[in-house]
Amino acid sequence: MSSVTFETQRAALADVVAIPVTPFTADDTVDTAALRALLRRLLDGGITTLTPNGNTGEFYALTPEERRLVTEVTVEEAAGRASVLVGVGHDVPAAVASARHAGEVGARMIMVHQPVHPYVSQGGWVDYHRAIAEAVPDLGVVPYLRNAQLPGARLAELADACPNVIGIKYAVPDAARFAAFARDAGLDRFVWVAGLAEPYAPSYFSAGASGFTSGLVNVAPAVSRNMIESLRAGDYPAAMKVWEQIRRFEELRAANGSADNVTVVKEALASLGLCGRDVRPPSKPLPEDARAEVAAIAAGWSI
Amino acid sequence: MSSVTFETQRAALADVVAIPVTPFTADDTVDTAALRALLRRLLDGGITTLTPNGNTGEFYALTPEERRLVTEVTVEEAAGRASVLVGVGHDVPAAVASARHAGEVGARMIMVHQPVHPYVSQGGWVDYHRAIAEAVPDLGVVPYLRNAQLPGARLAELADACPNVIGIKYAVPDAARFAAFARDAGLDRFVWVAGLAEPYAPSYFSAGASGFTSGLVNVAPAVSRNMIESLRAGDYPAAMKVWEQIRRFEELRAANGSADNVTVVKEALASLGLCGRDVRPPSKPLPEDARAEVAAIAAGWSI
Repeated sequence: MSSVTFETQRAALADVVAIPVTPFTADDTVDTAALRALLRRLLDGGITTLTPNGNTGEFYALTPEERRLVTEVTVEEAAGRASVLVGVGHDVPAAVASARHAGEVGARMIMVHQPVHPYVSQGGWVDYHRAIAEAVPDLGVVPYLRNAQLPGARLAELADACPNVIGIKYAVPDAARFAAFARDAGLDRFVWVAGLAEPYAPSYFSAGASGFTSGLVNVAPAVSRNMIESLRAGDYPAAMKVWEQIRRFEELRAANGSADNVTVVKEALASLGLCGRDVRPPSKPLPEDARAEVAAIAAGWSI
Repeated sequence: MSSVTFETQRAALADVVAIPVTPFTADDTVDTAALRALLRRLLDGGITTLTPNGNTGEFYALTPEERRLVTEVTVEEAAGRASVLVGVGHDVPAAVASARHAGEVGARMIMVHQPVHPYVSQGGWVDYHRAIAEAVPDLGVVPYLRNAQLPGARLAELADACPNVIGIKYAVPDAARFAAFARDAGLDRFVWVAGLAEPYAPSYFSAGASGFTSGLVNVAPAVSRNMIESLRAGDYPAAMKVWEQIRRFEELRAANGSADNVTVVKEALASLGLCGRDVRPPSKPLPEDARAEVAAIAAGWSI
């Protein structure tokens, strides 16, 4: 068994966990120059946890080679300034290869995307994560859970076998369900990351979360920092002021089954001149007539 | 534009569209000998449409190399006896590579798995399928739709651009929704395949479907043949007799969010000595105490 205690990794999860976008060039390759600039902007904005290959990074639209490239660029930019939590997924051999690559290039944590396989049994959920976590015993492992049906006991079972499972990104839009799951799994045993970003951060923190993921942070690092500082201080009215500030932006992202989740973030970044607006299918850039509202919100945050 | 009329492919879709399982050896590689035997059993049982790399084939648990192997073995066994509809998916470059490989080895159709990307816009859905369909203009293309929100007009838009989109595997558990979608897209323009197998085949046929997919067919080809022959004859009472015969088996597959969808099929095949029961994570083999009931059902069908 590894003697690693994962204290650094735990601290990094109890924070704003940024999910950077993956900018594309006009000929649809990864725009590494824009990506580096966006990562530096996050770091300069006080963000210290970066998740390459998350859903906001269009994980499922990237090729294996692009996923490796995004990991490498992120680790390089983060050097000494931030922790890197690399998103991995797909079939077990693919996930294990990505996890090992993450460790080889210097990342210390992986986030395991919820299996996309349509037939997930509870025991099979444990087996899937165990196969990945056991392959990288020195990396912190963070399952990403969007399935409200999994009992908390299954996470405890996984962590009994794999002590490197240190945190959870829980992403069910129900803070009571989160509260129950966390207690059934072991509230103090894991770092609980609110996986539905700023809109659910206050309610999740009220139930025991200590970190939250964010896509909005790409646009306005200071806004996400304001949210976490308010929550750390236990100042819920202040956190809800931030909530009110980001509400419309997050509603635009959530509309139509989250069709424009990444699209709206990239549109805001494009309006600020920070990267192109292109997203890959099955997402699609915003139509012209919807762009001005996003730009106005982003401009308001930049003042 | 291609001058292919796709008549053979259309006819193959208006039938029992078998989704073969992918058997595994004890050391977790694809058991090609067992796969070949199962395919021959389907062909000998009168099945003439085979879908390698469908969900019943554990598509999302296979590596790219395994997906190619399964395609090649299926095309070889089908030679002259059946049409092959190859499941493709993942990011666009991966799907295009799989589609081209399918054509190169002699398959004439592909089924495009619903994008697993969490942020699917309607326009992006069209773009995704168009990018794949345009890469293989001589292959028939069958989108697999599990999303009840997509309007039928979007499928028409896709087919306007890509005349090789000839059929749809529609898999929403609501025959009225299917009826509306099919009419909005163009009822006579596409071959409508009931994508939720025997349990929904009668209700979908009542609304215009002419084919259905099946995982159960792996176990009992004659049962699926009885269903389609009854439906073709317009004999709904006879089709519902088959429905009653398969009900319990399909309920076991559907339980707990379809956790055991493939597991139950492989358990039945194992009880008949036709392949191993192993499924890959995040699925899991049935516990010992649940196996006897599946074996009894399978034995009853084999008489």
